[in-house]
Amino acid sequence: MTGKHIERAEILLEALPYIRAFWGRTLVIKYGGAAMEAPHLKTSFALDVVLLKYVGMHPVIVHGGGPEISAAMKRLGKEPRFVDGMRVTDAETMEIVEMVLVGRINKEIVSLINQNGGRAVGLSGKDGNLLVARKRSHTDLQGQEIDIGLVGEIEAVNPQLIHLLVGEGFIPVIAPVAGGLDGQTYNVNADLVAGEVAAALKAEKLIHLTDVQGIDGADGVLLSTLSRSEAERLIVQGVIEGGMLPKVESALAALKGGVAKAHIIDGRLAHALLLEIFTKEGIGTEIVL
Amino acid sequence: MTGKHIERAEILLEALPYIRAFWGRTLVIKYGGAAMEAPHLKTSFALDVVLLKYVGMHPVIVHGGGPEISAAMKRLGKEPRFVDGMRVTDAETMEIVEMVLVGRINKEIVSLINQNGGRAVGLSGKDGNLLVARKRSHTDLQGQEIDIGLVGEIEAVNPQLIHLLVGEGFIPVIAPVAGGLDGQTYNVNADLVAGEVAAALKAEKLIHLTDVQGIDGADGVLLSTLSRSEAERLIVQGVIEGGMLPKVESALAALKGGVAKAHIIDGRLAHALLLEIFTKEGIGTEIVL
Amino acid sequence: MTGKHIERAEILLEALPYIRAFWGRTLVIKYGGAAMEAPHLKTSFALDVVLLKYVGMHPVIVHGGGPEISAAMKRLGKEPRFVDGMRVTDAETMEIVEMVLVGRINKEIVSLINQNGGRAVGLSGKDGNLLVARKRSHTDLQGQEIDIGLVGEIEAVNPQLIHLLVGEGFIPVIAPVAGGLDGQTYNVNADLVAGEVAAALKAEKLIHLTDVQGIDGADGVLLSTLSRSEAERLIVQGVIEGGMLPKVESALAALKGGVAKAHIIDGRLAHALLLEIFTKEGIGTEIVL
Amino acid sequence: MTGKHIERAEILLEALPYIRAFWGRTLVIKYGGAAMEAPHLKTSFALDVVLLKYVGMHPVIVHGGGPEISAAMKRLGKEPRFVDGMRVTDAETMEIVEMVLVGRINKEIVSLINQNGGRAVGLSGKDGNLLVARKRSHTDLQGQEIDIGLVGEIEAVNPQLIHLLVGEGFIPVIAPVAGGLDGQTYNVNADLVAGEVAAALKAEKLIHLTDVQGIDGADGVLLSTLSRSEAERLIVQGVIEGGMLPKVESALAALKGGVAKAHIIDGRLAHALLLEIFTKEGIGTEIVL
Amino acid sequence: MTGKHIERAEILLEALPYIRAFWGRTLVIKYGGAAMEAPHLKTSFALDVVLLKYVGMHPVIVHGGGPEISAAMKRLGKEPRFVDGMRVTDAETMEIVEMVLVGRINKEIVSLINQNGGRAVGLSGKDGNLLVARKRSHTDLQGQEIDIGLVGEIEAVNPQLIHLLVGEGFIPVIAPVAGGLDGQTYNVNADLVAGEVAAALKAEKLIHLTDVQGIDGADGVLLSTLSRSEAERLIVQGVIEGGMLPKVESALAALKGGVAKAHIIDGRLAHALLLEIFTKEGIGTEIVL
Amino acid sequence: MTGKHIERAEILLEALPYIRAFWGRTLVIKYGGAAMEAPHLKTSFALDVVLLKYVGMHPVIVHGGGPEISAAMKRLGKEPRFVDGMRVTDAETMEIVEMVLVGRINKEIVSLINQNGGRAVGLSGKDGNLLVARKRSHTDLQGQEIDIGLVGEIEAVNPQLIHLLVGEGFIPVIAPVAGGLDGQTYNVNADLVAGEVAAALKAEKLIHLTDVQGIDGADGVLLSTLSRSEAERLIVQGVIEGGMLPKVESALAALKGGVAKAHIIDGRLAHALLLEIFTKEGIGTEIVL
Repeated sequence: MTGKHIERAEILLEALPYIRAFWGRTLVIKYGGAAMEAPHLKTSFALDVVLLKYVGMHPVIVHGGGPEISAAMKRLGKEPRFVDGMRVTDAETMEIVEMVLVGRINKEIVSLINQNGGRAVGLSGKDGNLLVARKRSHTDLQGQEIDIGLVGEIEAVNPQLIHLLVGEGFIPVIAPVAGGLDGQTYNVNADLVAGEVAAALKAEKLIHLTDVQGIDGADGVLLSTLSRSEAERLIVQGVIEGGMLPKVESALAALKGGVAKAHIIDGRLAHALLLEIFTKEGIGTEIVL
Repeated sequence: MTGKHIERAEILLEALPYIRAFWGRTLVIKYGGAAMEAPHLKTSFALDVVLLKYVGMHPVIVHGGGPEISAAMKRLGKEPRFVDGMRVTDAETMEIVEMVLVGRINKEIVSLINQNGGRAVGLSGKDGNLLVARKRSHTDLQGQEIDIGLVGEIEAVNPQLIHLLVGEGFIPVIAPVAGGLDGQTYNVNADLVAGEVAAALKAEKLIHLTDVQGIDGADGVLLSTLSRSEAERLIVQGVIEGGMLPKVESALAALKGGVAKAHIIDGRLAHALLLEIFTKEGIGTEIVL
Repeated sequence: MTGKHIERAEILLEALPYIRAFWGRTLVIKYGGAAMEAPHLKTSFALDVVLLKYVGMHPVIVHGGGPEISAAMKRLGKEPRFVDGMRVTDAETMEIVEMVLVGRINKEIVSLINQNGGRAVGLSGKDGNLLVARKRSHTDLQGQEIDIGLVGEIEAVNPQLIHLLVGEGFIPVIAPVAGGLDGQTYNVNADLVAGEVAAALKAEKLIHLTDVQGIDGADGVLLSTLSRSEAERLIVQGVIEGGMLPKVESALAALKGGVAKAHIIDGRLAHALLLEIFTKEGIGTEIVL
Repeated sequence: MTGKHIERAEILLEALPYIRAFWGRTLVIKYGGAAMEAPHLKTSFALDVVLLKYVGMHPVIVHGGGPEISAAMKRLGKEPRFVDGMRVTDAETMEIVEMVLVGRINKEIVSLINQNGGRAVGLSGKDGNLLVARKRSHTDLQGQEIDIGLVGEIEAVNPQLIHLLVGEGFIPVIAPVAGGLDGQTYNVNADLVAGEVAAALKAEKLIHLTDVQGIDGADGVLLSTLSRSEAERLIVQGVIEGGMLPKVESALAALKGGVAKAHIIDGRLAHALLLEIFTKEGIGTEIVL
Repeated sequence: MTGKHIERAEILLEALPYIRAFWGRTLVIKYGGAAMEAPHLKTSFALDVVLLKYVGMHPVIVHGGGPEISAAMKRLGKEPRFVDGMRVTDAETMEIVEMVLVGRINKEIVSLINQNGGRAVGLSGKDGNLLVARKRSHTDLQGQEIDIGLVGEIEAVNPQLIHLLVGEGFIPVIAPVAGGLDGQTYNVNADLVAGEVAAALKAEKLIHLTDVQGIDGADGVLLSTLSRSEAERLIVQGVIEGGMLPKVESALAALKGGVAKAHIIDGRLAHALLLEIFTKEGIGTEIVL
Repeated sequence: MTGKHIERAEILLEALPYIRAFWGRTLVIKYGGAAMEAPHLKTSFALDVVLLKYVGMHPVIVHGGGPEISAAMKRLGKEPRFVDGMRVTDAETMEIVEMVLVGRINKEIVSLINQNGGRAVGLSGKDGNLLVARKRSHTDLQGQEIDIGLVGEIEAVNPQLIHLLVGEGFIPVIAPVAGGLDGQTYNVNADLVAGEVAAALKAEKLIHLTDVQGIDGADGVLLSTLSRSEAERLIVQGVIEGGMLPKVESALAALKGGVAKAHIIDGRLAHALLLEIFTKEGIGTEIVL
């Protein structure tokens, strides 16, 4: 038994305070970006999630899938179109969105987790009426209302199904597609779904896996902590913008709904989840009340 | 209050003996064919399922989706190819199969049931490792082994997830796609999945909704009841063949696994399920031990 | 399979919205009058109750039995005597009342329900101290107090026994006889018992099966809906009087105790319960807050 | 604090070994005879039963009621008739039997127990189909079959209702009236009902309260213990005969059904139950395997 | 069966009202003094506790052990030292205190109860963090702070472990030793522990077994009842003083914490617990709100 | 975020297969020797146990305490005496043994675990009659029976209390002192207690923390695996002897009782438990069927 082994044991024990702190707590994880593409990051993500589950936490995954959707559309000869970062979603596009998100990406994540020892169950917002959406109205900078089609926003989250699955040891994996009371299917921003789900579950943490190291301040330096009011100010100042905007909005919605902390972390790092949860300093930017 | 109302009450009461007989019992329903295409039949199916659930039975749906898969393949410029009725499934085809079955058809059925008042949850065989498949080996008539690709057969059913959902009032809807221990995704015949699921759940009944009135005998006359041994004989004689073959094989597997009765019924009839379950004579052909 | 069968299926499905609306809810039914006498109405009542139970509702029966009591008294050479509609109840009469209500009528109803497929349990107010009564004081029109003997009014309802039985799938059938804290046995008006039981159970509905079509207004025309205040006014005006009075008082007590709706319906109709519960317009008169 | 008090405490403690031995066990008690007539014996019985319940045992009461039935019949101008100790029971008699047993005696016992601090629930064999009877055929000494009417014997005991009530702290009190599969109501010998109920409940003890001190041997001396085979021999020898016969048959049926001991005790003694259960030597005659 | 037996049954029945009144309730008993020394009183105590448990009450024992601690110290050549009745407790003394209380006296009580038919589990305040203590500061009459060492006072009671054990039929026996958040072990006055435990458990009664007959008034006459305010006045007047002081303080803390009654009784009487609980007048002094 | 952090995450993940393998399983750990003396080993042990509990395993601790007992005896002027490795235990010695084991060492371990984040509950074999012992007879090499006093061997283990505590998240810590049916207290070898407890709990593993690296073969080389029959042979050959003998006997008893594996590991290593459980090769010697 070499010193290396003992060092390993000590590293295991360094995890104990974090295991105790988050034991039995729900962690909503928005999965996307590079962590969903590079094979070694995918495996690293799955292992992290399974470990979290086995040491007593309750991970709930929400995933996106923009690049694959656009690729599938192109294969079918349809040109993706965006307005202010939102995909214009006609009925045919919605069909492709749903097939790719629910029928491919979601199941790939489920398999990934299961092959690494977890018991994942993939869900769309339609399952058990988990997510109910309504049409999102969009106004451009000129104050003109623009019809962006079947893009939805969350009207209600019915978390009973999640509680049921989590309580029996399953790991829910949620695709951001939701049915509306009007019978339509809606494409909902995955970041926003994650925030609403975290709020509905009164999660301990909402963690966004992104392709940046976190939120930079006006001076371009990474902010390790951000209060809710600071985050709101940075949005007004335009420092937080583009793809980061819905992530921060989702974080703010989660905090407002009772979630203790939201994190924007760098999914390009292997084991980003473990680094965030099992180290004192964490990684990326944390947003707190 | 007219006589019409009283007649209605009497019709309700005629259902009572059947409600009592099947209360708390599991009914596995293979959904496919015309019942999955014509709008009025789709609604009729969803209503039937929701009614069965509300009066205390436990419907579990397994669906197919052949025509939609072929259509999607064609749209993507791929020509469907079949060997002895089985779709030759290369990796790209498997991807399309999964997207269409899990991402489109399954969710359409879930929505359909939910819009008619049920609480459905769509599952692929990957979810919670519900279905585990292995590659199906195929030999042609010349005894030559033919590689038909990612076509699978069921190796194991893990029904815990189904029991969990059913016990909490949900209606599981299962797409016939399964992961293998080899990490591959397999396309499995939906009829056979239904039979295996019925056996694993020790269901009361397995019901196949088809596009024929039932099983005809050698003389072309509908057989209303068929014993297991008679069914086996009709297979050997070639009277049962083609698309009916997997349905009857599924029925026999279910009976062998402890299911009380299997039914081949005419899904082209509105409310075929209710007609089967709530009338003394039933419809179509029943296969019994 | 003829059109008749399909029509039947459709009639079954028309019941679905009502099954969903009242699933898991408690219905207190006051059983009496013609529905308790004519054999075909008795069977119709029992079937209705069993069907309601099987489709997920929780019927609780309270019954009366005036005519049989008078008949038994006469057989024993005792002349029934009434003051303002209340039976003057000396000790010997009370003994007969209890024997007839609890030992004959109650058990006949229990058998009736059981023979039609339910699992009924008959109770008197003494069982598990379900009903506690006190002596009812009565003043005649001249303001003179008149001793009408062992006629009681409800002092307390202890519904634990009912909840226990209902939760295990039994149908409670309650005879309106109650013990007092003074050790006496009291004869309590069944209509009033039904109202108190409905209030104690926070029932969804209280339904009185009567021998009239409902409550008629001052103009003699059936009122299909009546508000609490309108009902109170009609009592003051003397339009509601006689045997209808305790039924409406019971309805008002139930509404006051948290019951959503009370119904006065025509028990002379076969399947009056189903007609009330499974049709949009209902039958008879409904009294609402 | 006098020595008298301390002596009392010591008496309480002498009960401890018996409380431990029978804690959580079921005691079926056949209640009848003098113990059901003399006021002080009635109170003594009720107190004993309530005490047994409070110290952790599960008493289940079965009662008879012959003398009251005959009295009621006479009041109604009907002459009771017996064949070999069994009441010839025509339909009118059966109606009286049921009214007296279920509507009067059963409720009197329920009240008695409740007034002494217990929570009794009275049941007839019809409630929850507790007892199912069939017609008893009777042959006289000449081998001639005699129709004694609606006299039944137990075909099945469905003890779920008893388990439910006992588990929630209630004391079931059972009247020996049962429905048959033929829809008839049957008068069943209470002694035999007690034996069948004890067997179905796998009771610890069956205790018959009688009007004699126990079973006397051929020499007229009280037998304190009797084995099953000795009891059978005494029956053949005619030493056990008359009203003692069904009691001993009931005891033998109970033993055969898994009951540990059956007791024939003297119900004319105040607190006979406590004397039997809380003293080493017991009272009366015990019958063991 | 002699009259003596019947008298015994009557004595058993006299206990019934008390069994009913305290059924399912928690009784915290401070055990100490003569009752813990004289062999016949020890057995009498154990039997009383086991009887209370078997008739449905939940006794929880807290014990002291002063004399044995002093004896052990002397054996080890250490002279016990007291300041205002509190043992000056250096680290070595604390070790002896813990060994004697937890390792000897507690286990002797556990064995005593188990040998008399109960199922006792001994606990120190450290087990499951049942008791958390902090250092008690002490000021002498001159206002001078005196360090009395590892003497603690209760900072928190975590009663989950007690509830768990009680709910499964065990009798907890608690030694008054507690850990502090500072990692120290503290010696806590057993009387005060009993009061805090009674408050944390919302016990029905707190009973102190002492070596006097109760609390005497200023006139030297036993007070059978004392209100909280009277007790406080007697403390101020110095009538309650010395070893009685912590007992009465413990009683007042318990009453303040929601306990219904506290009793100071004479543990020198055999069966003092039964005499207190099973007689109308009780013994000793009761202190009430 | 440096590479060091990522390496740490990877080390955490290497634990995952072991967490999965032993999740929900019981591990009986015999704690003694150096691991119970050196402060850093004590903390290391406590942390290991708490980590095991938090990641889903169920550690149950059995401890010894020989050196402290001898020290206490000497302080009290008593000379420890041993026969064939067993402490000759007169009544006074037994008293010291119990005080030291139960009142000091057991509580020190409980505190140690609690201070490191667990919830330990200390038990002696007397608590809840967990361990029942009988006097151990001892024969010397000359075949002469020698009375070694109150040395016991285990007659029965009643594991209900352990199951109860483990199921609620507590960590039981057991001192090897047991009561006998004869009312005596017995000193039982802790190694043997651990084996019996492991067998009674059907533990996954029994782990002995010792002061050697494991079991050496006849050639003095550490044996990493040993079959039951090999172990028995080494005992006969005298290779396994002295203090190792009861450890191996305990292991064999555990295996015989259904335990999967027993381990003799080196408690002088920090985190010996983690090294054994979380590495493929383990440490020390494993004994298997």
